[in-house]
Amino acid sequence: MTLRIGIAGISGRMGRLLSEEVAAAGATLAGGTGRNDDAEALFAGSDAVIDFTNAATAEAHAALAARHGRPLILGSSGLSSTQEAAVAEAARSVPVVYAANFSPGVALLFAMAERMAAVLPPEQYDAEIVEMHHRQKVDAPSGTAIGLGRAVARGRGRTLEEVGMESGRDGHTGPRATGPIGFAALRGGQVVGEHTLLFAAGSEHIALTHRSFDRRVYATGAVRAALWAAKQPPGLYDMKHVLGMG
Amino acid sequence: MTLRIGIAGISGRMGRLLSEEVAAAGATLAGGTGRNDDAEALFAGSDAVIDFTNAATAEAHAALAARHGRPLILGSSGLSSTQEAAVAEAARSVPVVYAANFSPGVALLFAMAERMAAVLPPEQYDAEIVEMHHRQKVDAPSGTAIGLGRAVARGRGRTLEEVGMESGRDGHTGPRATGPIGFAALRGGQVVGEHTLLFAAGSEHIALTHRSFDRRVYATGAVRAALWAAKQPPGLYDMKHVLGMG
Amino acid sequence: MTLRIGIAGISGRMGRLLSEEVAAAGATLAGGTGRNDDAEALFAGSDAVIDFTNAATAEAHAALAARHGRPLILGSSGLSSTQEAAVAEAARSVPVVYAANFSPGVALLFAMAERMAAVLPPEQYDAEIVEMHHRQKVDAPSGTAIGLGRAVARGRGRTLEEVGMESGRDGHTGPRATGPIGFAALRGGQVVGEHTLLFAAGSEHIALTHRSFDRRVYATGAVRAALWAAKQPPGLYDMKHVLGMG
Amino acid sequence: MTLRIGIAGISGRMGRLLSEEVAAAGATLAGGTGRNDDAEALFAGSDAVIDFTNAATAEAHAALAARHGRPLILGSSGLSSTQEAAVAEAARSVPVVYAANFSPGVALLFAMAERMAAVLPPEQYDAEIVEMHHRQKVDAPSGTAIGLGRAVARGRGRTLEEVGMESGRDGHTGPRATGPIGFAALRGGQVVGEHTLLFAAGSEHIALTHRSFDRRVYATGAVRAALWAAKQPPGLYDMKHVLGMG
Repeated sequence: MTLRIGIAGISGRMGRLLSEEVAAAGATLAGGTGRNDDAEALFAGSDAVIDFTNAATAEAHAALAARHGRPLILGSSGLSSTQEAAVAEAARSVPVVYAANFSPGVALLFAMAERMAAVLPPEQYDAEIVEMHHRQKVDAPSGTAIGLGRAVARGRGRTLEEVGMESGRDGHTGPRATGPIGFAALRGGQVVGEHTLLFAAGSEHIALTHRSFDRRVYATGAVRAALWAAKQPPGLYDMKHVLGMG
Repeated sequence: MTLRIGIAGISGRMGRLLSEEVAAAGATLAGGTGRNDDAEALFAGSDAVIDFTNAATAEAHAALAARHGRPLILGSSGLSSTQEAAVAEAARSVPVVYAANFSPGVALLFAMAERMAAVLPPEQYDAEIVEMHHRQKVDAPSGTAIGLGRAVARGRGRTLEEVGMESGRDGHTGPRATGPIGFAALRGGQVVGEHTLLFAAGSEHIALTHRSFDRRVYATGAVRAALWAAKQPPGLYDMKHVLGMG
Repeated sequence: MTLRIGIAGISGRMGRLLSEEVAAAGATLAGGTGRNDDAEALFAGSDAVIDFTNAATAEAHAALAARHGRPLILGSSGLSSTQEAAVAEAARSVPVVYAANFSPGVALLFAMAERMAAVLPPEQYDAEIVEMHHRQKVDAPSGTAIGLGRAVARGRGRTLEEVGMESGRDGHTGPRATGPIGFAALRGGQVVGEHTLLFAAGSEHIALTHRSFDRRVYATGAVRAALWAAKQPPGLYDMKHVLGMG
Repeated sequence: MTLRIGIAGISGRMGRLLSEEVAAAGATLAGGTGRNDDAEALFAGSDAVIDFTNAATAEAHAALAARHGRPLILGSSGLSSTQEAAVAEAARSVPVVYAANFSPGVALLFAMAERMAAVLPPEQYDAEIVEMHHRQKVDAPSGTAIGLGRAVARGRGRTLEEVGMESGRDGHTGPRATGPIGFAALRGGQVVGEHTLLFAAGSEHIALTHRSFDRRVYATGAVRAALWAAKQPPGLYDMKHVLGMG
């Protein structure tokens, strides 16, 4: 029997993409909620629920997932520590996949970045991260770029705060320090998202690049996560685990 | 009689390459100054002077070139507007070749950048410039990147000051404005110089990239500029003129 | 008063894109024809007509453009020599912009390629062309890649047949010859079209890259051509002229 | 106390690079042999020996390493099976790092390629490999490109022969098949070596790029291998082990 997947926030752009990807994956669309719908019935009638709505509902949805014993795929961002604690609590009784980015490629990028950073000594390989996004984006560096930086720092056994960021170089910068990670942001056109992590040594460069062409990739990843989570024991997972890189 | 060429900053790496290229071109090395040497004698005893030292000496050297009637080949970057004004003043009485980059390929890049910018409307094509240099470089953006920006502005019938620069984006930037040129700087390893000018529209991107592998190309170009300048009337020139693309 | 633009074949995917781009450009949509509609009224009621339908209607549309004194923007491909002659005949009395590719970027790419090739000696700069397209594409190199190669050859005062192609290197190739242009084809995913022209010398590389993200770029270019053509004398033009590079 | 490293073949270009990298790593240069020097004293007086000379001396040097209990870093290529057996025999009593390529970046590239291929389903992600080398190179694809292809196939649980190669596309190719790995070769200028592995899906691209700038990278890797080997038990290792990815 196919998995019945419910979608919180089914009427938005992301909800429509999720519906299409549920069908494309051969799963069954169990239903969906709009802004003011009761989520209780959604959790009751689904084998797994995908929620890309917003931080405000995360706590209630996590509790519903736990109460009904349903795996939860949570893609909302900006959760407070209280909201994150509620998600972690739910993950004690059901599988919860909680990630800032459901693109399989970006999850892979993070895993590879950490692995590469663990192997390439910071004294020899300067790490630089360049990202490009559409002209409407209002902040820099992107969350994904910072995530990449965290992965590099982790690979080096440190935190990003410890290694430091050289972001937005401009004017008299002095020589590049050894250790900090460089960040540069390009803005223009309608680029969905491009990220490059470059390790630059004197004799060689190694770079990892990811380009997103449409937001559908997040829906594809979330459905993949739902199919995977349905077979897992309770726990708090991210895309790294879904992809077998945990 | 061969041209006697003087070199400011002869003891550095660039100075040594310049000395070799002066010889390779069949010219005569008239002399050179180190960090604390008096440049007066250098200008007095040379038919032309090449200066790749730094912005701080540009004003004094421009005045010496004018006073002694010597063509000046100036490759220093990061000049203030006061320093640039002094260079322009000298160019009223002697030929001055002042360029951010003496590579023939970069001169071509500038010419192409201007041409492309004249054709691609700024309302549709956001112009972004990314450069990468070795870890020792102390300022950003590079002089060549700024030169590229000036070429783009010129192609659009404006100055770089008029169109504006968005350099070193970091933090809350707000949406990208229409018109300004973006600049981003990467630092790492021993990269001699890489520059990309990207025009990003919603449906297409067009990019122009230049990569330098060897600094000798700048020395070759500077000596070629000196030989050329010695036959020119007073004026402010760049490599475009030296290469006959002016 | 805004220009009234008519669209032949308004109900197809390209027609819809054209309608949107007419509006985006601040022009007026004068009307459009479907497969079986009479084009006479379209030409009578428009200040300019865009036709991306097919070769079969080119002759009739060219005659209508001439009879009604309307600029014609013709993007159909595969015209016979008889059909091309009819287009040329119409261009004696009205402006006709006839091009195989209305992307401003690709037209610009060709013009820049020719200019760069004219400046960079083939003895020092090896020219290589790489293109990537979606997995359904059945031939290699792409027509645009070959067009790029022709532009490079033209810049060097030769034809592509004269300089030669090294396409699809595989196995024992021997050292690269001086003069021929290299071609390489990548296939994968849903890439609309990416082309890079690289000039590789020992000390520097110069590259020109174009990436198409969707077919809208052709609609944007066609509307731009219509606005331009409305102010021109009769004649046969292509995108090079529209962009002021003729 | 710092490690005393001996260098077989110290007077050649590679030997000089090795000497410099020993110093740069803070180790001590124990000595070196020229073409006709006796290697016995070198092994006696060093804590580890690096040998990039040639296959002919591999057997003798392996025996000396074993006799004196010294780790051996062996970068010679073209060893016969007899010579390889002698190396393996020595590795029973001392650590021997024997690799065809000591670039940490290339070793890392192979490991990452295998890992990524294991995660990205071939039905969704087309794998394409592009390499560029100097104009003197006589075959295509490069050995490193083929090594990359093998790593991708391995990650997918197959061999490169099983998945197949689409190398040097030219002419009527038909649509891209699902499964085979694409290869494209660029030739020009003096490029030491550039390799890109691209995974192209409909909504995202992930690429891994390696660029070699000079042969120094092999010296850096060899010195790193020596420092690592000095702390290992006897055994036959390659760069994968040195980098902690074994």
